[in-house]
Amino acid sequence: MKPSITSLIESLPATIPFVAPESIERRTGIPFTVRVGANESAFGISPRAKYAMDQAVNTISHYNDPESNDLREALATHHKVDTNQISVGAGIDDLLGLAVRTFIGPERIAVSSLGSYPTLHFHVNGFGGTNHTVPYLPNGFNDLNALADAAIKQAASLVYLANPDNPAGTWFRASDLNAFVNGLPDSCACILDEAYIEFAPEGTAFPMGDLDPRIMIMRTFSKAHGMAGARIGYTIATPEIITAFNKVRLHFNVNLIAQAGALASLKDLDFVAGVVSSVQQGRNDYEALAQELGLSTLPSATNFVTFDAGTQQRAQLILNALAKRGVFIRKPGAPPLDRCFRVTVGTDQERQDFARILPQVLSEIDAAIA
Amino acid sequence: MKPSITSLIESLPATIPFVAPESIERRTGIPFTVRVGANESAFGISPRAKYAMDQAVNTISHYNDPESNDLREALATHHKVDTNQISVGAGIDDLLGLAVRTFIGPERIAVSSLGSYPTLHFHVNGFGGTNHTVPYLPNGFNDLNALADAAIKQAASLVYLANPDNPAGTWFRASDLNAFVNGLPDSCACILDEAYIEFAPEGTAFPMGDLDPRIMIMRTFSKAHGMAGARIGYTIATPEIITAFNKVRLHFNVNLIAQAGALASLKDLDFVAGVVSSVQQGRNDYEALAQELGLSTLPSATNFVTFDAGTQQRAQLILNALAKRGVFIRKPGAPPLDRCFRVTVGTDQERQDFARILPQVLSEIDAAIA
Repeated sequence: MKPSITSLIESLPATIPFVAPESIERRTGIPFTVRVGANESAFGISPRAKYAMDQAVNTISHYNDPESNDLREALATHHKVDTNQISVGAGIDDLLGLAVRTFIGPERIAVSSLGSYPTLHFHVNGFGGTNHTVPYLPNGFNDLNALADAAIKQAASLVYLANPDNPAGTWFRASDLNAFVNGLPDSCACILDEAYIEFAPEGTAFPMGDLDPRIMIMRTFSKAHGMAGARIGYTIATPEIITAFNKVRLHFNVNLIAQAGALASLKDLDFVAGVVSSVQQGRNDYEALAQELGLSTLPSATNFVTFDAGTQQRAQLILNALAKRGVFIRKPGAPPLDRCFRVTVGTDQERQDFARILPQVLSEIDAAIA
Repeated sequence: MKPSITSLIESLPATIPFVAPESIERRTGIPFTVRVGANESAFGISPRAKYAMDQAVNTISHYNDPESNDLREALATHHKVDTNQISVGAGIDDLLGLAVRTFIGPERIAVSSLGSYPTLHFHVNGFGGTNHTVPYLPNGFNDLNALADAAIKQAASLVYLANPDNPAGTWFRASDLNAFVNGLPDSCACILDEAYIEFAPEGTAFPMGDLDPRIMIMRTFSKAHGMAGARIGYTIATPEIITAFNKVRLHFNVNLIAQAGALASLKDLDFVAGVVSSVQQGRNDYEALAQELGLSTLPSATNFVTFDAGTQQRAQLILNALAKRGVFIRKPGAPPLDRCFRVTVGTDQERQDFARILPQVLSEIDAAIA
């Protein structure tokens, strides 16, 4: 007696996109006291969002609005787009799944950078498609020419690009992306993952007016708005793509508290500006620290800094040694960036702790390697 | 320039499983003052859950545990199963999607009752499968023999049964379900949706020990625990099925506040017992009201009562007339139960309002029909 799992699901590996810090803590028994690995915000949430979420707990017995109507209207005003161009989801992870489900299936190919956001690859595999990847450039930038070439040669149905990039932190000006988008095949959809856009210089965000029918811009409240645990993000695209999402999305997936918090946070842009400024300070601190220690860093327009350890081995040893001392970081998994490790801008205390522990770890490792 | 949506997504209708009361309000401009249509709990959440959720808002900048480890361990203890037999999801809607994705695909058939939970049918269509339905019995019970026969004749990959049933409210004893399950094809998976189980008499819950490898039992914190807007439920099944879910589920889908609230609520079973008792009282009130008005009701082991209006036309007129007076209810959409309307046990005030408004509506309609 054995229920018949589909051959697609049977064929998938039992891997998951991310191992959570909680899972690592359970495995090692060492608690993380400096949590700078998941690009969570060290600067909390807007007091308005806090108030709205507290109030929302009082009405939690009611279902959430499956259309996220109030939030979508506010986002439409904010971005000067139509409400029917917006789909709200339980974080970009959810929205990536919808985009992949809409454009990928058996015999369809998604193009992305090798070592880019693993949940994208997870969804492509999960919906029976094929991931075709091209390496990052050695300097940590996505290779736009190679991505566009691959999209053409593979007759890809979907291209994924994070701008600013995760895990590198690098970014392109929107005007430079225009040429990239124009070079994609007519039938190839394009995800622009702008999870970190608030931290980037002006001119980075892709213009939403008169949007190319192939583009899906994805945004989140997890980073600058500080609401990672609430699970809420959104996609801006043409009404045709949003209609496709509506045909399959989990309509009640965005919980009531997240909707209330996001709506309130969207109206507190001063708070977000303060976070962005604190993050800038934190990146400066990390860059100064790296310079002191003779490490280079990749340029970053995000809430993290990617340190160059020189070799994959050294980067991995640094990550392991930090974990033993209660410091949670992550590192890129594929060459050429696997020589790097990625550190989130933490609180003042976390940055001080990190600045104290990293030199110890480096001395120890370099003594052992030498 | 047109991105290439998959033929499956293109083929799907732009329908959604449920129209939310908020959407109806926006369309009609009439606010619902008596919200007894979505089987939401009128009795709120446990004070312990409230406290835990308030606290969780303070840590919302951190990602949620993607394994819901603490909650899964507590559930394992509570149900006397292994932790690896439990998958936590963003409500049963999410878990139904995972079950369908695991067992259904093109050329695969799911069997269920005609007019049963629409989100199940939505997922089956959405993943390219075929819904095969059999009518409810005229008395509002699922036709177990017909469901099992259909599973055999259609060589179905999946059967869905809600026990207690939604939208009927009727239920079977677990011992009666045993024969049903034993009669299913060896390779046919079976969803037992126990969303309303807390409201049912002892002997209704399907035993979880030594679980049949084909069964997925689904539970939720939306009903008796009063946490509908938080989005959290779970599946109990064999580790093999849970492993399949893990291959494709959205790992960060269950937000941090919901995990905290569910864990706290699970430890406040006195609160849940109080809700169950209040709901029992409410059902009695509705049944007495029905008797007064010469309506029959279906037997219910849920937090709602399904009233028999005699004909589809009369049931629809009642629903429309109630909506005009600010009363939100729902009705079954398919024969034979489309002659009925379904009313959630509301607060004392809502039940009093309903008891005042329903007789007015009936007089008006019966005068108009006559």
